[in-house]
Amino acid sequence: MSDHIKIDKEFIEQLQLLVDQGDEQSIQEKVVNMHPADIAEILDVVNLEEAKFIFRRLTDELASDVIVELDEDVREIFLKAFSAKEIAEQIDNMDSDDAADIISELPLEKQQSVISQIEDKAQAQSIASLMAYEENTAGAWMATEFIAVKDDWNVTQCISELRKQAEDVSYVYTIYVIDKGKQLIGMFSLKSLLFAKDNDLVKDLYMTDVISVNVNEDIEEVAKSMKKYDLVAIPVVSDDNLLLGRITIDDIVDVMEDEAVKDYQMASGISEKIESNDSIWAITKARLPWLMVGLVGGVLGAQVIGLFEHQLGTFPEMAFFIPLIAAMGGNVGVQSSAIIVQSLATNSIDMGNTYTKLLKEFGIALINGLACSVAIFFIIWGIQQDLKLGTTVSISLMAVIIFAGLFGTLVPLVLHKRKIDPALATGPFITTANDVVGLLIYFLIGYVIYF
Amino acid sequence: MSDHIKIDKEFIEQLQLLVDQGDEQSIQEKVVNMHPADIAEILDVVNLEEAKFIFRRLTDELASDVIVELDEDVREIFLKAFSAKEIAEQIDNMDSDDAADIISELPLEKQQSVISQIEDKAQAQSIASLMAYEENTAGAWMATEFIAVKDDWNVTQCISELRKQAEDVSYVYTIYVIDKGKQLIGMFSLKSLLFAKDNDLVKDLYMTDVISVNVNEDIEEVAKSMKKYDLVAIPVVSDDNLLLGRITIDDIVDVMEDEAVKDYQMASGISEKIESNDSIWAITKARLPWLMVGLVGGVLGAQVIGLFEHQLGTFPEMAFFIPLIAAMGGNVGVQSSAIIVQSLATNSIDMGNTYTKLLKEFGIALINGLACSVAIFFIIWGIQQDLKLGTTVSISLMAVIIFAGLFGTLVPLVLHKRKIDPALATGPFITTANDVVGLLIYFLIGYVIYF
Repeated sequence: MSDHIKIDKEFIEQLQLLVDQGDEQSIQEKVVNMHPADIAEILDVVNLEEAKFIFRRLTDELASDVIVELDEDVREIFLKAFSAKEIAEQIDNMDSDDAADIISELPLEKQQSVISQIEDKAQAQSIASLMAYEENTAGAWMATEFIAVKDDWNVTQCISELRKQAEDVSYVYTIYVIDKGKQLIGMFSLKSLLFAKDNDLVKDLYMTDVISVNVNEDIEEVAKSMKKYDLVAIPVVSDDNLLLGRITIDDIVDVMEDEAVKDYQMASGISEKIESNDSIWAITKARLPWLMVGLVGGVLGAQVIGLFEHQLGTFPEMAFFIPLIAAMGGNVGVQSSAIIVQSLATNSIDMGNTYTKLLKEFGIALINGLACSVAIFFIIWGIQQDLKLGTTVSISLMAVIIFAGLFGTLVPLVLHKRKIDPALATGPFITTANDVVGLLIYFLIGYVIYF
Repeated sequence: MSDHIKIDKEFIEQLQLLVDQGDEQSIQEKVVNMHPADIAEILDVVNLEEAKFIFRRLTDELASDVIVELDEDVREIFLKAFSAKEIAEQIDNMDSDDAADIISELPLEKQQSVISQIEDKAQAQSIASLMAYEENTAGAWMATEFIAVKDDWNVTQCISELRKQAEDVSYVYTIYVIDKGKQLIGMFSLKSLLFAKDNDLVKDLYMTDVISVNVNEDIEEVAKSMKKYDLVAIPVVSDDNLLLGRITIDDIVDVMEDEAVKDYQMASGISEKIESNDSIWAITKARLPWLMVGLVGGVLGAQVIGLFEHQLGTFPEMAFFIPLIAAMGGNVGVQSSAIIVQSLATNSIDMGNTYTKLLKEFGIALINGLACSVAIFFIIWGIQQDLKLGTTVSISLMAVIIFAGLFGTLVPLVLHKRKIDPALATGPFITTANDVVGLLIYFLIGYVIYF
C-alpha cells in the first residue's frame, strides 16, 4: 500500500495515547486523510469510549462512510448512542443499500422514526422499499442508485443526464438503457460513450445482450452468475423486466465470504456465525449445540457397546480398537459429504444422478478401505500377533469405510433435494451417526468371528 | 438471466444429439451467440470428442475466450490436441495474465515453443515476464493491459491515447497517471474524464491517493486489500513504484474461492484440491493420506487402552464411554482451532496475544465442559445407576474438553508463527491427537477413582 499508513498495533496504541491525553487536534490530523475502511478497522478494535472520541473528530461525510464500514456488532453498540435524527442525517449520505442494511439492524421502534426523519423523501422511499424485500434475495442486496438513459437520446443528452445522476452513483461501470416503459433493453460502457460523437444516438451504441437477475432471485445464485460471467455489476429487474436497481461486485464478495465462513464453520461444528473477538457467551452458544449432538452420539455408542458387554468381558482386547473404528467412520463420512456439499455449491450443471455418485463413492471407499484394512491387519499382526483380532478389525474397518462413504454421500444429496442446506451434513452430525453404526458393525463382525 | 439460454441437462443432451448427427449448422447456430463461459461449461461436461466437435464450430475470437474459461483439467486434455502454433494463435487474442496462466499449464518443452510462435512480440515479452514471477504473488496474477496517461497531457490527448490503448483493455475502470519515469503518481475515473473540458489538464483531474500493491506481495494480502477498500482493480508496482500491471476483481474472486475451498477441504480431511468429477484415483489420492493419519492415531489409541487392559478387564463398563471421550475431544479441538484459523485469515489487526486467547478459550471450555459433564453425569446415573462410572466419565469429559480446547487454540497459533498454514491444524491431525490424549486422561482418572 504505497501511500497508505500501515494500521498496526503500534499505530493504534499511539492513537489511544492521544485519546487519553484528549488531544483532539492531533487525532484529527491523523485520521482526516485516512480511508473510511481503515478508520472503521481502528474503531472496531479500540474500546467504545475511545471509538466515540475518535468518531467525533470526523467530518460528516467521512463519518457516514465509516459507519457503513464498521463491524456489525460494533455498529450496533455505536448507534445506540445516537438519536433517530442524528442517524437519519448520516443515512442521507449513504447509498440506498447500505442505508437499508443499517436501518434494518436498528431496534424496530427506532427504524420507523429514522426513516421518517430522512430529509430526502425519495431516498427514504427507496430505503423503505428495499427493506421490504425478503432476506437473501437480489432485492434485499441491490442499490437503487444506477445510471439509466433512454434509447432515443443522443450522446449530448446522455452526458448531461449522467452529470445529474452521477452525483449519487460513486462507481458507474455501465450505463443501462431503458425504454419509455422503464423496461431494461440494453447497456453500454462508459468507454463507448467517451468515444462516441455528440449527436450519435444511444440506439446505435448499446448492446441488447444484457445479463440481468430477477429481484426475487436468491443472492447466492446472483453471486454464481456474476462470478461465472466476470461481472462487476448486474442489473436487477422485476418480473416485467422493469429496471429496479443493481448489485455490485463488492457486495458479492461479501456474500461469498459469508457463505465460505458458514460452510467452514458448519464443517467445524460451529452452529452460528461467530468471530474470535465475540464474547465468551456468544462463542459458547455457537459451540455447545454441536457438542450436545456429540454427547448424544456418545451415549448411543455406549448403549451399542453395552449390548456386547459379555463379548467384551471375554475378549477385552476388542476394546483397544473402538477409537480407531469410530474415528475412521467419522473421517470417511466427513470427507465424502464435503465433496458432495462442495459440488452442490459450485457446479451449475449436474450431469450425474444419485446412483452414479454412490457407485463412484463405492469405488473410492473400496480402494481406501482395502489400503487401510491391509495396513491395520499387518500392524496388529506385527504388534500383538493376534490373527483373530487382526481379522476382526480389518474386516470391520473395510465395512465401516464403505458404509460411512455411502452414507456421507447420500445424506447431503437427500438434504439438498428437500431444500435443506446440505452443509448441515458435514458437522458432527455425520461423524456421530457413523460412530454409532461403525461400532455396531465392529461388534457384530467380532461376534461372528469370535463365537 | 433474462436474455440467456438456460444451460441445463436437457440443453446439453440436445446438443449431444446434434453432435451425434454431425449437424454442424445447427450447432453453430446454437452456440454463436452464447457467452464464452456458458460454452466452456458445456465443454467441461460433455466427452472429449463431443467437445472437440463443438469447439471447431466456434469463431477464432470466441474460441480463445472459451479456452480461458475452461476448467483446468479439461483444458489440459484439450490443448494436447493442438500444435504449438495453433495455441500461439489463440494466445494472441487473450489478455496477458490469462495467456501466461494457460502457457504455464503446458508441458515445459511446449511452453518455449508456444511463446516463440506468438506473432505480437511485445505480447510474447509480457507473457514471458509474467511467467517469471513466483506463484501466488501479485506479479503472477496481474495483467499488463491497463490504461496509463502522462500527468502533463490534456483531456484531448488522453482520449486519443485511450482510443489506442482501449482496444487491448476490455474493462477500463480507472485511468492511471504516470510521470516521465513511468512511476505511478495518481489515478482518475473515466467518469471524471467524461465531464472534463477538452483542454483541462490531467494534472488537475487526478487523485494522488492511490492504493497500490508491490509486485512481490502475496496474492491473499492483495485480496484482503481489495475487499477492504471495495476496489474493482488495483495497480501493481515495482519496488521503485514503476507501474507494471493491474489485478482485477474477477481474479480476486477466484483467489477467494480457491482459499475457501482449500480451508474447507482441510477441515474435512482432504489433502489436495479435488472436485466431485475428478477421477476415482485422484479423489482417493487426496483422501487416503488423512485416513492413514487417522489410522496411526487409532493404533496409538489402541496402545493407550492396552496399557489399561487389566483395569478394563475388571471394569468392562469403562469401555462404553471410550467413543464419547474420543469424539468429544475431537469435536472441541476442531471447533477451537477453526475459530483461530478463521481469525488469522480475516483479521488484519491482531490486538490480542497468545496468552489472552488461551485464557478466553479456557473460559469457553469451562462453560461447555461443565454443561456436558453435568449432562453426562445425570444420563449415566439415570440409565445405569452407576455413580463411580458417572463420576469418572464426567470428570474426564471436563478435563478432555479443556485440554482439547487449549490444544486446538495453541496448535494453529504456533503453526502460523512458524509460517506453516494454520488450516493444517483443523484436519484429522488435531482430532487424532485429541483422541489419544483424551483416552489417556480418561483411563488415568478412571484408575484414580476405581483403585
